[in-house]
Amino acid sequence: MTRPRLQVVFAMAPDALRRIFPDPRRARIAEIADVRGVVTEFESDAARTALAEADVLITGWGSPFIDLDVLRAAPRLTAILHSGGTIKPYVSDAVLARVDVSTAAAANAVPVAEYTAAMIVLANKKILPIAARYRRLQEEFDVEGAFGGIGNFDKRIGIVGASKIGRIVIELLRAYDLEVVVHDPFLSASDAADLGVQAVELDELLATSDVVSVHAPSLEETRNLIDARRIGLMRHGTTLVNTARGELVDQSALTERVVAGELCAILDVTTPWILERDHPLYRHENVILTPHIAGSVGTELHRLADVVAAELGRLAAGSPLAHPIAVDRMAITA
Amino acid sequence: MTRPRLQVVFAMAPDALRRIFPDPRRARIAEIADVRGVVTEFESDAARTALAEADVLITGWGSPFIDLDVLRAAPRLTAILHSGGTIKPYVSDAVLARVDVSTAAAANAVPVAEYTAAMIVLANKKILPIAARYRRLQEEFDVEGAFGGIGNFDKRIGIVGASKIGRIVIELLRAYDLEVVVHDPFLSASDAADLGVQAVELDELLATSDVVSVHAPSLEETRNLIDARRIGLMRHGTTLVNTARGELVDQSALTERVVAGELCAILDVTTPWILERDHPLYRHENVILTPHIAGSVGTELHRLADVVAAELGRLAAGSPLAHPIAVDRMAITA
Repeated sequence: MTRPRLQVVFAMAPDALRRIFPDPRRARIAEIADVRGVVTEFESDAARTALAEADVLITGWGSPFIDLDVLRAAPRLTAILHSGGTIKPYVSDAVLARVDVSTAAAANAVPVAEYTAAMIVLANKKILPIAARYRRLQEEFDVEGAFGGIGNFDKRIGIVGASKIGRIVIELLRAYDLEVVVHDPFLSASDAADLGVQAVELDELLATSDVVSVHAPSLEETRNLIDARRIGLMRHGTTLVNTARGELVDQSALTERVVAGELCAILDVTTPWILERDHPLYRHENVILTPHIAGSVGTELHRLADVVAAELGRLAAGSPLAHPIAVDRMAITA
Repeated sequence: MTRPRLQVVFAMAPDALRRIFPDPRRARIAEIADVRGVVTEFESDAARTALAEADVLITGWGSPFIDLDVLRAAPRLTAILHSGGTIKPYVSDAVLARVDVSTAAAANAVPVAEYTAAMIVLANKKILPIAARYRRLQEEFDVEGAFGGIGNFDKRIGIVGASKIGRIVIELLRAYDLEVVVHDPFLSASDAADLGVQAVELDELLATSDVVSVHAPSLEETRNLIDARRIGLMRHGTTLVNTARGELVDQSALTERVVAGELCAILDVTTPWILERDHPLYRHENVILTPHIAGSVGTELHRLADVVAAELGRLAAGSPLAHPIAVDRMAITA
């Protein structure tokens, strides 16, 4: 018995579609299923026609919101394959309870973790502050005199949040001679042991780590998690890496200690999203500031398409999804 | 039967001794063997007295040269444990043929490979040029418009030289979704397959890689290995990483293409060692220049001491050295 071919509708912003699913990736989807349309809203007649036929919706950044009303217009719909990380802005809880939903969150976590691990290796050795100083001085200087205790050996890395990203960072750091400690209120000591790291309290993590990297979700409870008191716990020379959300960190307290030459910072996120002009963090030698590029960009977006294609292949074969959303975990994931 | 305790003499520059063997590391050596002295030359009566008793010499940067004359003054000497990488400047070939010599070259390769792998991950995504531009503009800009095809996915990395360092880089990159090709005149296709990479000709490597990293030894034959013609083979947007020796690369040709905005460069070594003031490589946004810090510095020097202590422990136990110098390979190692 051959299964009927799946009918698929893309529902996302045109820019997201173009970047995540360039031609070879669109073609891969079309090999597995029939593409019945590309929609950016669910109101028009054309969109309603496409919805009426859809077995699967492929969503992404800029998808129109999917609530029970949309679901009623899509009577055949059995699965939503999300090519992004966070599903919450796009699908209502009621829909999540009724339709299988898969996300590319795991694939989306990879580049953030890769950025982080690379920056941790450079941070242990103060390589970018040294490069900035060399650029300024344009002459030989006493590196070890200027930057004490540098090196990727005998160092402790503190991971705040055993999230998907945090766990990949831990995995990547296994190849290095570094001690990794982790703080996560939802991580037991035995889970930590399974990860090969030690679970510690947040204050201890901040006070004893050479590099602190933040991978906690952005929730009401985690707002200002690294507050001024905790910024004060970090030792002279510590580097704070933040690829998560600016709101997790007291940016004024951080800036003060950076400007005093006490801390280094590697920030892919700030508050606001783009810092105001002339903010001291732009200019300080001990700071690397990037405009929210740690996540999937460029070719890394194609990895998301590959995850969606693989999930679609599983649906077509009648196999279970590899990356289903677990509805009961929604409260503590971003 | 208990073996007599080994008699050890340190022969290296005081600065090297202090940095590689700080107190806890000195104490570790003294647990395993009797330290009979610390010498910086082999001429004085004190040095000759120490040599006369030495079973083992521990050498390092700034060691006085060990030739047959020194060997005659050290009749008990059976091993030289070198805490650095390159042994050639410190020991004559005749001595190498008569005494067991071990080096910490493998440990010394680790930080260079770690620097390189981190920089390759950042280079695929143009993270540091993006950070430099963000610092200059202090406003949001179209990252993918400005830097095409960025990302750590669907990229080819070209490793020039399957040296100790090159092999560790290959090992570290295994955790990433990257294709690695290698060029090394001494590497067979089957050796390459064992490493999980493809062996290619140097010209092809340069013309097809997104990041090229140089790990060839600095020999007469490798001088100007990446010459002007080969610099010309690299595609627009390629990053050249050099942590080996400036002399391997035609720096003028590289500078020209960097200044034209065609290539990016991450250079831990240049010609001369410290670039002259106002050299364009100091200022260009697409260049990261570091003052020869990729190798062991700071705490990474303690890893070298740990290798020496472990080798000394093997000698004390009558076990074979883990990192012996293979005399016949000297011609092609640096």
